[in-house]
Parts: sequence; C-alpha cells; structure tokens
Amino acid sequence: MVQTTPSPIQVVLPQGFRASAVHCGLRKQQDHADLGLLIAGEAQKAVAVFTQNRLCGAHVHVCREHLQQSAGLVRAILVNARNANCATGQQGIADARAVCAQLAQRIGCPPEQVLMCSTGPIGAPLPKEKILAKLDWLVEHQSEHAGGEFARAIMTTDTFPKAQTRTFAANDRIARVTGFAKGAGMIHPNMATMLAFTLVDACPEGDLQMLLRRSADRSYHRVTIDGDTSPNDTLVLWAGGATCATAPFEQAVTEAGQELARSIARDGEGATRFLTIEVRGAMDEAEANLVGRTIATSPLVKTAVAGRDPNWGRILSAAGRCGVPFDAELVRVWVGPAEVYSHGVPHPEREGEAHQHLMQNTDIVLGIDLQRGIAQADIWSCDLTKDYIQINADYRS
Amino acid sequence: MVQTTPSPIQVVLPQGFRASAVHCGLRKQQDHADLGLLIAGEAQKAVAVFTQNRLCGAHVHVCREHLQQSAGLVRAILVNARNANCATGQQGIADARAVCAQLAQRIGCPPEQVLMCSTGPIGAPLPKEKILAKLDWLVEHQSEHAGGEFARAIMTTDTFPKAQTRTFAANDRIARVTGFAKGAGMIHPNMATMLAFTLVDACPEGDLQMLLRRSADRSYHRVTIDGDTSPNDTLVLWAGGATCATAPFEQAVTEAGQELARSIARDGEGATRFLTIEVRGAMDEAEANLVGRTIATSPLVKTAVAGRDPNWGRILSAAGRCGVPFDAELVRVWVGPAEVYSHGVPHPEREGEAHQHLMQNTDIVLGIDLQRGIAQADIWSCDLTKDYIQINADYRS
Repeated sequence: MVQTTPSPIQVVLPQGFRASAVHCGLRKQQDHADLGLLIAGEAQKAVAVFTQNRLCGAHVHVCREHLQQSAGLVRAILVNARNANCATGQQGIADARAVCAQLAQRIGCPPEQVLMCSTGPIGAPLPKEKILAKLDWLVEHQSEHAGGEFARAIMTTDTFPKAQTRTFAANDRIARVTGFAKGAGMIHPNMATMLAFTLVDACPEGDLQMLLRRSADRSYHRVTIDGDTSPNDTLVLWAGGATCATAPFEQAVTEAGQELARSIARDGEGATRFLTIEVRGAMDEAEANLVGRTIATSPLVKTAVAGRDPNWGRILSAAGRCGVPFDAELVRVWVGPAEVYSHGVPHPEREGEAHQHLMQNTDIVLGIDLQRGIAQADIWSCDLTKDYIQINADYRS
Repeated sequence: MVQTTPSPIQVVLPQGFRASAVHCGLRKQQDHADLGLLIAGEAQKAVAVFTQNRLCGAHVHVCREHLQQSAGLVRAILVNARNANCATGQQGIADARAVCAQLAQRIGCPPEQVLMCSTGPIGAPLPKEKILAKLDWLVEHQSEHAGGEFARAIMTTDTFPKAQTRTFAANDRIARVTGFAKGAGMIHPNMATMLAFTLVDACPEGDLQMLLRRSADRSYHRVTIDGDTSPNDTLVLWAGGATCATAPFEQAVTEAGQELARSIARDGEGATRFLTIEVRGAMDEAEANLVGRTIATSPLVKTAVAGRDPNWGRILSAAGRCGVPFDAELVRVWVGPAEVYSHGVPHPEREGEAHQHLMQNTDIVLGIDLQRGIAQADIWSCDLTKDYIQINADYRS
C-alpha cells in the first residue's frame, strides 16, 4: 500500500540474539540505514532455502558454501540494501567472501559462520569499502533492542518494515520466534520472498531443513506480486537454545512466516488492494496452489481489481489456462461475499455487492470452487496499478 | 502503438471469397462496424486451432461441432465484436447455433457449414436479435472489395485493423493468401491470437490440420502481450480452389501469419515499443521458445522497456527462472546493437548505446545467447505501460 515514511517499529528478539543497523552510504537518504546485522551470542543452527533462478546473486553462492563448511552453524548474518551483488561474476563472489571474512575476524569466529545477503539493482559491483568501513560500528552497537532498526535497514522498495514475533511453550518456558522480511517486487514462488530471516530461541531435534520447506510452502511460497522471481531470494531459519517439541515450533515459525508473507503482498509495488485468492474444491493442495497462483499473477485480474471491477470472467479465464481440467459448468466464483458465477451462468444481480466489496475494503477476497475435490489453498497477492509501472520503469534512474 | 481512429484499408481477397461488414449495435460508435462476414462461393475446406483454456467461448463449442458435422466444409464465417458469448452457459451455445442456422438458411447451405466467432467482454448474453436483424444486409452486400471493412469490424481494443496478403505460384497461376486477425490484449500462446482467419484460393493435398499447427507454432504462437490466454482464441485456415504444392502454400500462409502476429504485438494494449526477443544458442526450438516467452512476459522486463531502461539484469533474471539450466557465466545478453553482459560480467560502457536503441526506435531487440546449442527462436511482444493498466482497469466500465 502507498504509505508515508515508515515509522520505527519495536521488535523483540529471541534470547541470545542481537541486532544493529547503520547507514553506510548505499542509500541516498542519510537518515535511513542500509546495512543491518543479526548476531547470536554463540553459533546456532541455521537452515536456508534459496532462489530457484539460474542466475544467483553472489551471496547465494557464498551462503551455500558457508553453510556447508560450517555444518549449518551461524554466528552472524549481514544484510545490505540497494545493491544485489548479482551478475557481478567471480569478483562479486570474492567481494561477498571478503566481507564475511572481515566480519568474522571482528567477532571472533570462522568466516564460514558468517552469512551475507544482498538485494537491490542487479549488475553493479558491490561497494565493498563502504560496507567494510561500518563493520566495527555494527559490532560495537549490537543490541537486543535494535530489531526494528534492522527491519528498516533491509528495505529496498518496501514502504514499511516487516517483522513478526510469536511465542510458544517450550518445556518449562516461553520460547520466541522473530521473523524479518523484505519484499515489494520481483516476488513469486519459489521463493516468494526476497529476503527473510526467522530467529528462534529454541530448536527441535530432527530435520530442520525439511521443516523449513514445509513451513515455506505454506507461507512465503503462497505470495506473488508480479510472477518475477529474484536471483537473490533467501529464507534463513536460525534457531538455538534449548531443545523443544517440533509441532509448536513449526506452528509458530509458519504463523510468523504467513503474516510476513501477507505483509509482503500488502506492500506490493504500487498496490492499493491486498488480495486473498481462495481456491476450494481442488483435487489436492498442489492443484489448489496452481490455480491460485495463476489467478494471482494474471495482469487482467490484477488490473480489474485496480479498476474496482468485479470482473469474474477474468478470474475464470485465468483459472482456465493453468492446465487443471475443471468443468466450467460446475465451478463457482465469488468476489467478497457475492457469488457472481455458478453452474455455467453469471449472476449479474450480485455484481453490485461485489463492486461494493472492492470499493469499500482494502483486503479483497476473490474465490473459486473447482468442484473437483476437497483440497484448498489461499494465495496472497495485490492489484496491478499504474504506480507499479512507474516504480519499475524508474527503478534504476 | 497508440494511434488515432483507424483509417480504412484495402484488402484483396482470394478468388471465390467475399466479405461484408455492418454496424448492428454492439459497439457504441455508429460509424464503426461490429459484425463481419466472410463467405465463399461454394463450401471450401477449413481447419482450425482453438484456445487451450478450460473456459471456452460458446463459439468454440459450436465451431468444433460444425467442423465435425460438415467434415471440415465451410461456406461462411460470421464474426462479432464487443461480446465474447463466453461463460454464458447452454443459452450462449444455443444462441450461437441459432445465429449460424439463420445465416445458413439465408445463403442456402446446411447450418454446420456456417461458423461463428465472438470476442469482447466475458459473461454478457449474446445480443442475438441485433445480429439476426443484420444478416440479410450482410448477405446482400457481400463483395470481393469489403475485406478492409471486415478487418475493421472484428476489432475490439485493437487500434488498427490487421490484414495481410501473400501470393505464391500454384501450378500455372498465382494463388493468394489473405489473413485477418484481431488481438491487442489477453494474448499469449497457445493460441496467441484471439481471432485469425486465413483464406487461400488454392489447397494442397495432405493433412491441412497438421500444416496449420506447424504454421501457427511459427507465427501466432510466438507472440505474447500479457500472458493471459483468451477462452475464445480461434485460428481458421480456409482454403479452396485448385490443388497446389504444399511447400509454397505453407510458406505463404506462415509468412502472412507471422506478419499478423507481429502486428498484434505492435498493437498490444498501451504499448509504445514493439519487442523482438531473440533467443540464440538453445538446445532445441522448444527451449528457445520457453526462454523467449518467459522474458517476453516478465512485467519487470516490459516495464523497463517502457522506462527506456536497458535493464539486462531483468532479462537475465527472467530467463533464469524458466527452468532451462544455462550457465549464467557463459550467456550473452544484448539490447539492440549493444552486448551488455557476457562471460559473467556486465559491460556498463555499452549501456549508453543500449539506452539510445530504446529511445530512438519503436522496434526494439532484446537478445540472449544461452551458449548451449544451435537452436533459436524469435518471440514478439511489447512493453508494459500505464496505458495497459488504464485500458484494462476500465474495460467494462
């Protein structure tokens, strides 16, 4: 949504984690940090999911390498905005490695226990010196109260910082999940998010990587802004402290991820409406997802919402091209509370109600029941407006 | 491209075919025909390719049915604008059948030798009476000189009428191909076109349906405006007269189709630039197509062109997400004459030249060499502008 300058937010970090943020000169605005640090008192277990794009940002190479070398133990994550360090060749990878090594030296850990993540325009060399010059400051100013500053530092075209916390019972105490994300454009499963970091002060036994995949499939992988996936998409789950049960941990991590995913869609570039695409009556969840994503990425559906037009024909038509063999004479389509199509015929008498839903709400529901089975999925997206064009036609200028 | 009111065009029809066009009241502008007729002196062989969308316009059902019943013999094709007769249930199908039957009665042929095609907004009942009221007029005024009027009558959001003719040697005479198309939005393979009709006054022996598929794969299926496919997409090849050789026939039909496909992209809703995506060095043509289509549908690539930004990072990034496992360190990317990325590094010194290409031309070339093989394909598209949003947010209002 279009918003004014983001106000600072308060974010509570899980025990044992600290954050800091600083302006190092990547962003023009002096009062807006562009380099953020997350740091753990001691190395904790981390797993990650990366972009599926053949073009990978330098940090993706280096993060994979470091997680392998460290057997998944991480002490710190450094994040810069306004430069993707992507399509920068071997030099970009060397730059990212060098920054990690310098930070590792300052905090006293092996280089492979440091991760670095970058987002922003593709193709410009990483301004390494600007970043290196602020590492001492970041380490010195680490604080358990700086989560909000970190969330703000990692924004690129985001209009508001994105963080969520959840608590859950872990044995005899309350554990905390804190998730951070940045998004806004070039957002599509898989990965939906550009960068997201989920910190937890408890950790279950078992396969954390599998747990993260399951969780991502029901959170970040359900949001799409424009169908374009970034070469830098990275989601890190970083969990330490006492051992806890798997189920409440996974639930809290997933809930925080879902709320962050929704906030990414709410902050879609140029968006004026947040969309939930409800797909019902699918044969399985994958089918429901496919139908939902196809509707959510249809420029015609998204521009109709921008024009407040309850154009159910476009919803049905988008669903129809995704390859799921539903029967158009059986499906039902709704816009908010109004069922506008069913049993092969439109219900024009309900369109007024559907139009009101689009006019009077910022959270819009578009739904389709395929009448094929009982599986379902919700996909989150936003409308497509002239401001999206403006933002993306001007991005590098 | 944005144009003023389309001027009449002259279109020569192949021997034995006539056309007519009239305003029947579907369009608001009284001086713009909205109902067109193509008619053959006697029934000629026709084959067709239809939308792959699960939602089909009523005319798709009726055309399939009639072509089967008539063993592919067609006397007339009636086309209306401004109403898709889609998602109109059994009533819509009955309406289309009734219109065909009424026209058949007037020209003295079996109902199954008449096809009908509709495009426009989805969901409104076909204004059958308005159409029926003009059938006598259309039949009486059929003329070999009315091809231009027909091309104009079938436009919906098109800004100019689209027709192409080609000639080829058929035994001892010159045969003629005349193709008509309408497009502008909701355009994506397969079928790329919304409606296209190709008439020829010669016909080869052999499988005309297979020939049409091959021809479409190299013409209409190479254009994309917005990734949305219409439930009404229909391409008809209608050929009669003397028998001719296959090769020159196929070449002329394909060339006319390619030029019509390009004109559809040129007339993309809100477009200011015509794009040719050159994909080189692919393993096979399917791979080249996939890469080209992914680049051509990327909102980020299309908005960059709208902003005259030679943003090769977005081209590379779009290619990277389509599933083709190229090596980002080997590929080359160019914008017009300027190679802006190769061997894993950008060439910022060439960006000025690339920017000039975008500023000074309306026909833009974006290219990528995957360095995997020797197959190639060109895909045609257009930029994504605020006017696309305007047109599609306002379409039904």
